[in-house]
Formats: sequence, structure tokens, C-alpha cells
Amino acid sequence: MNLEQFPKKVRIVEVGARDGLQNEKSVIDTADKVEFIKKLADAGHQSIEVTSFVRPDRIAQMSDAKELFPLVKKIIDPDKTQLICLVPNLKGLELASELGVKDVAVFTATSDSFNLKNINATVSQSFDRIEPVIEKALASGMRVRGYVSTAFGCPYEGAMDPRKAGLVAQRLDQMGCHEISIGDTIGTGTPYSVHKVLDEVLKSVSQEKVALHFHDTRGMAVANVMAGLERGIAHYDSSAGGLGGCPYAKGATGNVGTEDLIYLFHTFGIDCGVDLDKQCVSSLYMLEKLEKYTTSKFLQAYLNGKMKIYMPSPKDF
Amino acid sequence: MNLEQFPKKVRIVEVGARDGLQNEKSVIDTADKVEFIKKLADAGHQSIEVTSFVRPDRIAQMSDAKELFPLVKKIIDPDKTQLICLVPNLKGLELASELGVKDVAVFTATSDSFNLKNINATVSQSFDRIEPVIEKALASGMRVRGYVSTAFGCPYEGAMDPRKAGLVAQRLDQMGCHEISIGDTIGTGTPYSVHKVLDEVLKSVSQEKVALHFHDTRGMAVANVMAGLERGIAHYDSSAGGLGGCPYAKGATGNVGTEDLIYLFHTFGIDCGVDLDKQCVSSLYMLEKLEKYTTSKFLQAYLNGKMKIYMPSPKDF
Repeated sequence: MNLEQFPKKVRIVEVGARDGLQNEKSVIDTADKVEFIKKLADAGHQSIEVTSFVRPDRIAQMSDAKELFPLVKKIIDPDKTQLICLVPNLKGLELASELGVKDVAVFTATSDSFNLKNINATVSQSFDRIEPVIEKALASGMRVRGYVSTAFGCPYEGAMDPRKAGLVAQRLDQMGCHEISIGDTIGTGTPYSVHKVLDEVLKSVSQEKVALHFHDTRGMAVANVMAGLERGIAHYDSSAGGLGGCPYAKGATGNVGTEDLIYLFHTFGIDCGVDLDKQCVSSLYMLEKLEKYTTSKFLQAYLNGKMKIYMPSPKDF
Repeated sequence: MNLEQFPKKVRIVEVGARDGLQNEKSVIDTADKVEFIKKLADAGHQSIEVTSFVRPDRIAQMSDAKELFPLVKKIIDPDKTQLICLVPNLKGLELASELGVKDVAVFTATSDSFNLKNINATVSQSFDRIEPVIEKALASGMRVRGYVSTAFGCPYEGAMDPRKAGLVAQRLDQMGCHEISIGDTIGTGTPYSVHKVLDEVLKSVSQEKVALHFHDTRGMAVANVMAGLERGIAHYDSSAGGLGGCPYAKGATGNVGTEDLIYLFHTFGIDCGVDLDKQCVSSLYMLEKLEKYTTSKFLQAYLNGKMKIYMPSPKDF
């Protein structure tokens, strides 16, 4: 462990309200989503993924995007918290633009099979769609985040060649994305593959533009973040309480819990700007609405009254 | 990540039948424990913690130690699988000796407060008890494993000075323990403190004698094992399915799940000799008896039918 390679500060991109909720069956009231996002911003989050401008009939949980965004925008200080919205196409971008969205995200994957099932386009075809979206977004002064899904493994193709993640990331970078989030969509990544994928991605994309997005399906996510820290990566996606994954449901593949990452960062003395106690309260607010238990082990410990025991930091050693 | 420092082979010490079950409320039938241990041995385990020779009125789950051990011994090949029994004192050792136990384990902690609550002795007083046990065990040709509890944190004292773990480990080493297991009893350890504690322990104890024992209370255990691998540590304690911790119960502090570790090792191409599929089947056998869900995220994914997707290994990259 070479602490000198570690970033001094990290930023969490809280994806619970979008990537998390999108994978939850119970559809949450718009007002409850607004309150959830407000709590997350109050906890100190600099970046919150708010919603996705998809066709309302495609994903029920995201069908209130048009109503939700203005309500959130009204109460969140844009200088403190970046509000990110997914836009799958030009129609989504147009809507986002009308509503005054400043940060959009586009997505593709490294796997043709996954992309075909998900967005009915090969990886190459997806770039034909994304390119005009990015161009138009940049022209209207927005910032664009790019997602690279299935970078570590694909449910249909299995292991993915890390060079594919490198090439997709490079292309998103060249198109003008200010940040590229490398995603372990199905949670098969491990520290070994994280290093291999970063070897490829960092060949063309500069370190400060790279974010990592892990799902904790097989319990590797925190170790994967450690691998990212060792490579100097400073941006990590996570979801409040591990929203999106359910320990009881078939097909559970939730994002790593934000609480687990804040705890990890804290113990290294790395500042992420988010208050852990407030984060727990925010997560529990939404988990209660969903009537579900958390997949975040830290939040489980918190619920068991164990957080107060002590929070070790480097000065303790 | 310097893979050259990683051990080529690792050994898991499967503690589900003792450390795991001891923390479960439902008392399991002796015959079911025997079957569980048989399944674990068949999965390839080289070391299984079987039971603890404590006073039968102290821990109900361990009160069948005298009946259990001979039944296990009868069916397990001693050349393939080491059967470890905890002995808290000379009386326990005597019983173990009569039953033909070859591997015993003794335990103490780095924290006086914890030891006083647990065994009514300070750390220093505990050594007065342990020393004759180790001497006698060695004299009768047994091997002795030493446990260092609360090495990373104590429920009463908070953060522990890593030098204490170093000193306790050194003393157990000097007394003749062939292996010293450094335990994160309450699961507050993180990769940072693992490195700090190992800095101290490795000053006096040679690397090949050190084992690490993590509880996954705050989701850090797999990352902690990664830190251990980086320091060349080759022995890891874990429990089948994360037995001992319950996601619903207050005070859940289960051992890291054996499945999560086998998966981690596999993806690095590190041989641990245990078949992951057979491990899952063994764990599920006992979880069914306990009527509980697993805390191991890998086993959760396995139950969701996700293991078959693919098992990445270094040759995939």
C-alpha cells in the first residue's frame, strides 16, 4: 500500500435516486424523492444523480423526471451540488435542456450483446446516437458524463477484454465527456480486473477524469475501490444504503453502499465531504419508503448501534 | 498492486463450526454438525475449527464438544484436514488430549477491558493461564494456534494501539504457537489499520506464521484480506456463509464469508484448495438448519443463480 499514490480528496457521485431507485420495484412518490435528494445534498454531496429522461412508458420509476427535476433544482444550491440527469437520446437531451439541466450523462457499454438487449444498438451504433447528444449538450454549455457499462463482465458474453473498456472510454473522452465512469454493471469485478481495466483506460484518459462505478453483487466492491485508490482515482459512484440491490430478491445487483465508502475513506483520512451520520439518516429515509432492509454492511452496523463504538482514523494509529 | 508480493497459495481456516455457530442462537444437533464438517472437508478444507472445550454450562452451542470431536475424528482424514479445537485452560486441554486432538487453539486479546469481560483476566494474567496450556500441549506433541482478539479495535476501549497486537503476537510466538491469528473481533479494521497492525506484528513474528481473522461488520473484510495478501500473508480465517453474523439481529458481527474469500483468491489465480461450489452447498446445509439467510454476498449471488455467469480468473485478462 503506497499511500502517496492515494488521492487526498475524493468525490462520491451519489446514484441512489437514479441507478438505485430504477432497480427498485416500488414506485416512489415524487415528493419523497425530492426530500431524499435534499437530505443527500444536506449531507454534503457534491454530485447527485437525480433522474433519467427516458420515455415515461419505459421505466415507471423514472416517469416523473419532468416534474421531479424542477422541484429539486428549486431547493438545491447549484454551486454546492451538481445535479446529474441521464439522457439516452436527443429527445431526452432536449427535455433536459428546457428544464435547465446543467449536467447530463450518456451511456454505452463494452459489450455488443448487452447494448443490443439494453438499447437495441451495438457499441458502434450507440456512438452514432451518443455523438450528436454530446455535441449538442456541449454546445449549450452543459457538462457531459459518460458511462461505460459492463467494463468488467457481461451477463451474456462473460469476461470482457479490458481493452474494450479502454477504447470506449477513449472515445467518450475524445467526444468531450468531462468524466468517464467505468461500470461493473453485474458486479463480477475484483481488484485484479480493476487494475487490468485501469491499465487500459489510463492509457488514453487522464486519471482525474476517471470515475469507478461498482456493484457489490459478490462482495468485492470495497476492495475494488481500494484498487482504484491505489491508482489515484478520486471519483466513485455509490448508492445510499446500497439501493438497487435487495438481499432477498432474485437478481440483486445493487450499487456499493455510500456508507461503506465514506467509512473506508474516513479510515484513510481521505476527505469526501459527506457526513456519515447524515448519509445514514438519508438512506434510512428512502429505505423506509421502500420498506426494505439495506445491503450496506456499514448501515447494518449503524442500525445495530455499532457506529458509536468508534470511527478509526489515521490519527488513531 | 504488486502481485509479486502476493502468496501463490493460501490456506483458509474454516471457523464456521466453532466461531460461527458459537454466535448463533439455535443450538444445532451434534449429528448435523458432523455432517457440516464432513461436507467442509470434502470441499477441500485443510483446516477446520471444530469446537471449543469450554465448561458445558458456559456456551450451550459448544456443550457437545466431548461427543462431537470423536465423531468428526472418525470420518476425517487427518492427513488432509487439520481439526482445531479451542482450549481455554488446562482442564480443556486435558479433555482434548484424552480425545486425541492434535491441534488446539488458545486465545487472548490486546485489550484488558475485553479480556476481563470475556475471561475475567487482564492480558498479562491471561498469559499466566495460557503458558502452562501451551507447554503441556507442546509436550504431548500437539500443535498450538494462538488467537489475538481485538487487535484492531475493542468494544470498550475503542481504537487499539497496533503495538499491543505486536507484543501479544510476539509472546504467543515465543511460547511456541505455530500460527498466530490476528483477529478483528468487532469488525472495525480497515486496510489502513491492517497495514499498521502488520507493521508491528511482522517485526517479531515471521510472515508464514501469521493468519488474519476478519469480521465483516462494516463491509471491510474483503478489502482487509487484500491488504493481507499485499503483505504476503497466506492464512485467512473465515466462516461458511458468514455464519455467526445475522443481517437482522442486533449485534451482528459475523466472520467474513468463506465464499467471498474463495472468489477473491480465484480471481487472482491464487490456489486455496477449496471447491467454491461445494463450499456453497456446505454453507447452505448449515444455514438451512439455522433457518437463516447468509451474510456472504457471494453466497447471495449464488442463490440468485448468478455464479454460473462466469468466474473470472487471470487468464481471462
